[in-house]
Amino acid sequence: MKLATFKNGTRDGQLLVVARDLSVAADASIIAPNLRCAIENWTDAEPPLQELYRALNAGAVAGAFPLEVSRLHAPLPRTWQWLDASAFHSHGDLLEKVFGSTPPPQKRTVPLVYQGAGDDFLGPVDDQPLPSEADGMDFEAEVAIIVDRVPMGTRATQASSHIKLVMILNDTSLRVRAMHELRTGFGFGQCKPATSFGPVAVTVDELGPGGWRDGRVQLPIHVHWNGREFGHPHCGAMGFSFEQLIEHNATTRNLSAGTVIGSGTISNENFREVGSACIAERRGIELLDHGAPRTEFMKFGDTVRIEIFDSAGRTIFGAIDQRYVRASAA
Amino acid sequence: MKLATFKNGTRDGQLLVVARDLSVAADASIIAPNLRCAIENWTDAEPPLQELYRALNAGAVAGAFPLEVSRLHAPLPRTWQWLDASAFHSHGDLLEKVFGSTPPPQKRTVPLVYQGAGDDFLGPVDDQPLPSEADGMDFEAEVAIIVDRVPMGTRATQASSHIKLVMILNDTSLRVRAMHELRTGFGFGQCKPATSFGPVAVTVDELGPGGWRDGRVQLPIHVHWNGREFGHPHCGAMGFSFEQLIEHNATTRNLSAGTVIGSGTISNENFREVGSACIAERRGIELLDHGAPRTEFMKFGDTVRIEIFDSAGRTIFGAIDQRYVRASAA
Repeated sequence: MKLATFKNGTRDGQLLVVARDLSVAADASIIAPNLRCAIENWTDAEPPLQELYRALNAGAVAGAFPLEVSRLHAPLPRTWQWLDASAFHSHGDLLEKVFGSTPPPQKRTVPLVYQGAGDDFLGPVDDQPLPSEADGMDFEAEVAIIVDRVPMGTRATQASSHIKLVMILNDTSLRVRAMHELRTGFGFGQCKPATSFGPVAVTVDELGPGGWRDGRVQLPIHVHWNGREFGHPHCGAMGFSFEQLIEHNATTRNLSAGTVIGSGTISNENFREVGSACIAERRGIELLDHGAPRTEFMKFGDTVRIEIFDSAGRTIFGAIDQRYVRASAA
Repeated sequence: MKLATFKNGTRDGQLLVVARDLSVAADASIIAPNLRCAIENWTDAEPPLQELYRALNAGAVAGAFPLEVSRLHAPLPRTWQWLDASAFHSHGDLLEKVFGSTPPPQKRTVPLVYQGAGDDFLGPVDDQPLPSEADGMDFEAEVAIIVDRVPMGTRATQASSHIKLVMILNDTSLRVRAMHELRTGFGFGQCKPATSFGPVAVTVDELGPGGWRDGRVQLPIHVHWNGREFGHPHCGAMGFSFEQLIEHNATTRNLSAGTVIGSGTISNENFREVGSACIAERRGIELLDHGAPRTEFMKFGDTVRIEIFDSAGRTIFGAIDQRYVRASAA
């Protein structure tokens, strides 16, 4: 099943069911007004949403309409917790080497996760407004899950039933600000502006045969910067599964229904062959190879495109395709 | 004006207006069903809420009923962003000395703020369920503001009009987990379980003459642990004003209406006279004075009480009065 959120003027938007090939959509607000309500009442909402999805794919929904991605919010325009991991070891290992920094304690056994702002997500083709190029603007291509309510103390072995939907996202990062914030120990604030999500959230079966295994998306993510391929690292290389990330995050707290948990920048050990999903990683490689980074961070007007295809080459989530622009004054 | 939230079985609760002396309350849900809706529509909601408050204090509201604190949620049971600073320099300076840690860069000019979980706040007398005494359970008495929507780029000089309500809170911290998380640079996750708030949120005029000045609460906070006074440090010693914290947090992002910004543990330079608002600080003093901490962290069954009084000795927010209990299995 694929779900999207139409910009109807409300903060939570209007729930749509979207056909598998993303050609058409149907209003689902009679089932749940928005995805936040649907995920908070998933047991009741899922069966009729699935039924509508089957009918839509069969061309049997009166009032189905062509999907216009520009009119979509993030699938969840806002949510209660946004927890983003850094679960790809090749990414962390590289950056430690580059910066000569101390490896985080227990880095192979305890996930790194920061708590982000979940209140103001951007749609798949919304502009990304930012105050200054001097902040070191970067993209980060990631995958994420949406969970229903996870009680405190839930273990990884109990966690997979809480994974309801999967998304792709662009976790925009301001690298100059990140360097400062990393040193404070207090986590990421100013360096993490609004996060953008792909057009649709999908149930794991939509990833196709073998597309979801071991609590991981088992497909490459394709990243283009200003129209040129930047990388296509494989999402299956996650050092921790999403079930492990759920256990980690629910150790001392409940996770409300609608909590979004991200993978961190997709990264592979063979980054020289497959490329990267963020500029910081490419700059790290250049620093190792040439003694200095050669690739600059983003400029206003730059675009990034992020997409995942199934084994038959069909887009699963549609594309994130964003332009970075200068924010207007408050 | 004083506002509270009745536990009516919904996640956001039911909005109440509460009399100045906290004796009685009136249903305000005809104006806004809950405080989240009120703060999202503050311009429309505030005048009728103020009118109801005046009538309630005059004894002129039919259906007013005795306030039962045990039936209250946090004023905002859940919200979109929960940003908690560490704005008292004496606290940070002491802990740096104790741990021999490197001071955060620009610690006097750039506030330290972590992003917390705003989805599952606790009411003023709710139990605090936690998994293990071995985590180093501690309380932190703080003050916080609730803002309406703050656009990205808002400066401190523009910020005071966004401060709509003030609260007290207990930012429970797990010190053993915090030591690990501080070293990762990714901020606080497992070490920050659910946060509890005092019975009512109040407009700044309720702090009394001189009770709110320079973007700070200008009154001491009183902390009791298991019925014995633990400290009464003054909230006016904040090293950054709430306006400065708003500017800091809105530098690269919008803050949604309902965002809660906390002060961090209240702490004064003369902590030996006024005591502390968290156990970690007292342990730090003991380490300096005696070479080792003498006070242990909390045990299950322990209670903490947090309260602020106006210059005439009247409680402003009512009291947080919580018991720490072992969490049941998920």
